[in-house]
Amino acid sequence: MINEKMFELGSKRSAIRDLFEYAKERGAQIGAENVFDFSIGNPSVPAPDCVKEAILDLVAHGDPVALHGYTSAQGDPQVRAAMAAHLSGHCATQIGAEDMYMTCGAAASLTISLGALVCPGDQVIVFAPFFPEYRVFIEAAGAECVVIPPREPELAPDLEALRAALNDNTKAVILNSPNNPSGVVYSEETIRALCGILRQAQEEFSHPIYLISDEPYRELVYDGAQVPCVLDFYDNTLICYSFSKSLSLPGERIGYIAVSPRAADNRRIYAAVCGAGRALGYVCAPSLMQQVAARCVGKTADISVYRRNRDRLCAALKEYGYSFARPDGAFYLFVKALEPDASAFCERAKRHELLLVPSDSFGCPGYVRIACCVRPDMIERALPAFRALAQEYGVIE
Amino acid sequence: MINEKMFELGSKRSAIRDLFEYAKERGAQIGAENVFDFSIGNPSVPAPDCVKEAILDLVAHGDPVALHGYTSAQGDPQVRAAMAAHLSGHCATQIGAEDMYMTCGAAASLTISLGALVCPGDQVIVFAPFFPEYRVFIEAAGAECVVIPPREPELAPDLEALRAALNDNTKAVILNSPNNPSGVVYSEETIRALCGILRQAQEEFSHPIYLISDEPYRELVYDGAQVPCVLDFYDNTLICYSFSKSLSLPGERIGYIAVSPRAADNRRIYAAVCGAGRALGYVCAPSLMQQVAARCVGKTADISVYRRNRDRLCAALKEYGYSFARPDGAFYLFVKALEPDASAFCERAKRHELLLVPSDSFGCPGYVRIACCVRPDMIERALPAFRALAQEYGVIE
Repeated sequence: MINEKMFELGSKRSAIRDLFEYAKERGAQIGAENVFDFSIGNPSVPAPDCVKEAILDLVAHGDPVALHGYTSAQGDPQVRAAMAAHLSGHCATQIGAEDMYMTCGAAASLTISLGALVCPGDQVIVFAPFFPEYRVFIEAAGAECVVIPPREPELAPDLEALRAALNDNTKAVILNSPNNPSGVVYSEETIRALCGILRQAQEEFSHPIYLISDEPYRELVYDGAQVPCVLDFYDNTLICYSFSKSLSLPGERIGYIAVSPRAADNRRIYAAVCGAGRALGYVCAPSLMQQVAARCVGKTADISVYRRNRDRLCAALKEYGYSFARPDGAFYLFVKALEPDASAFCERAKRHELLLVPSDSFGCPGYVRIACCVRPDMIERALPAFRALAQEYGVIE
Repeated sequence: MINEKMFELGSKRSAIRDLFEYAKERGAQIGAENVFDFSIGNPSVPAPDCVKEAILDLVAHGDPVALHGYTSAQGDPQVRAAMAAHLSGHCATQIGAEDMYMTCGAAASLTISLGALVCPGDQVIVFAPFFPEYRVFIEAAGAECVVIPPREPELAPDLEALRAALNDNTKAVILNSPNNPSGVVYSEETIRALCGILRQAQEEFSHPIYLISDEPYRELVYDGAQVPCVLDFYDNTLICYSFSKSLSLPGERIGYIAVSPRAADNRRIYAAVCGAGRALGYVCAPSLMQQVAARCVGKTADISVYRRNRDRLCAALKEYGYSFARPDGAFYLFVKALEPDASAFCERAKRHELLLVPSDSFGCPGYVRIACCVRPDMIERALPAFRALAQEYGVIE
């Protein structure tokens, strides 16, 4: 008599959650330092000092009624202006406060954007590998999730497959670069080509096709990699952003949606975003954290730790015979499993106390995701296990 | 090509929002001190000291990675234990941490509870007068909103009308005491009778009917009024709570759902709550505010201000010939309009610079809502206007 779909979503533990529980149990048996848990995608570095300073100052000197009070549903006007100014610095497109809608983090940005756009019978396209919750959010909004397998080995979007998948029911395409789980950053060339295909399809099918760009890892790039501003390449774009990774605030649930000022129907889309936020129960984004985000926008946690971890892991895994696309962003490595069945491979890795996430739920079988947002000393202790695992498969001697 | 229903929800300004904008404009014309805005339901007293102390201590001395990190989706275990212990003190029923699910405030508590329970074709019953967003949330979950008009003049639930409205499609009944907009607190006798009717209907229709008790005003009661614990009277109950009013933290979005441990299928309901939270994009309740709520649970802002405001307004309005049910809780007065059309009455009140909310959107025509959570000096300045308005209608000389 309850909603069975929701029961299923709430009771079916994800592979990542299973590993999380296993790590705790196994750690209790053999000592936490002997379990090499690469499953978690949580920032491991603290928020920048700016966050602490902002909170202490706001709470010590702010008016508590205003500080903890409702903001307007779309967010405090000055906070939105600060967000718009910062995003306008990253883009050639100039974004106004009236285009910004503050949210309770990236997941809320996505469910609200999808709620605003999706009508019954719609399809939403995602590129594998993709964050598994995309499917949950797309289906909850009432659309069908259409998966485009990647070009391998570089794990870039397969644009020919995209062209073939677009049809009269396509409402939106979700882009996620830097990518979770692969860490791949899509090049400007790829973005340009992809947007060209979408423009063609809009004309062919005579209706808008929206690009939803999910960018929680936008600032987490290495070696000078550039994340192009998608707003500059395609008019019907919504950017979904979160401060979870850039400011190491994943629990605080603070982010935004930017509706492109160049979108046809920009005001109608923005109103629908407000309506979807209302229908889903998001009254406003957390008020104190809105102010904190406005003061700290543009700053980042010390992401050099993730780069060093990536470099160390990439060098060692390459030496041991593993293959992967070297990630330019985010904090993951997406590594080819040493046998076709990634789950079976992860089970064998477990015997070496290595906890890796099989890639099946990312829509891209045959890989494992390795989180680089871990303590460097754990990586050092884990490397012999990665080597032994490769030896077991005969990849190295 | 966007979702028209969401566009409508986002672009159709509510009566309250309209008045908010009008108050700003009018204040600019004649001076803010000459506009008597009784439309807003925002706490006007600051959060108790405990909130400031908790934030400063947590931020100064806590581990920032853990403090701002993801909690489990249902909330930090110790926070949930603190909530369960406090609620168990209010109820005869003993609630465990495993029955508690932390949310981003009351609206999220409601959308998640409804999402967990509602199946296509379901009806959800509300008692007028009711918070207008109930209809939005019920319809967003895919159910039909069935409104039961009140018994007048006491504005209590009409239990005979409830009995007649229950049918095979009834999934849930929403209860809201202390009530927004009337301030009425339902008596234990009323709760007992209502629960008896629901139990009968469960038997008659051979399926569970859930009671969703929305209790953001639970602590805001005056003159020793008691708010019975609904869990003690009906097994299939979910309590939706928020700290917005009790701790004056409406912008911070922190609350909880308590699933009755006595509910048939308690574990399945709880799992469906987790699933609905996931599908709606609620990853976890804001992490810092979870800790703050755990430290301050049981404390309240200085609600004596609301009581004094209520007393002053009730005495004066009675003297001027207005009629209303004297509120025992919340911070509203629900006053009979002096003509049948509440909107027309509010327009005439506006000419006296009195901003009142007409009751039509509360499902109960012919009344106005007057917020008592305002500055006492504004009440003093406004009383002559209330008198003049009554004189205009010939209620007094």
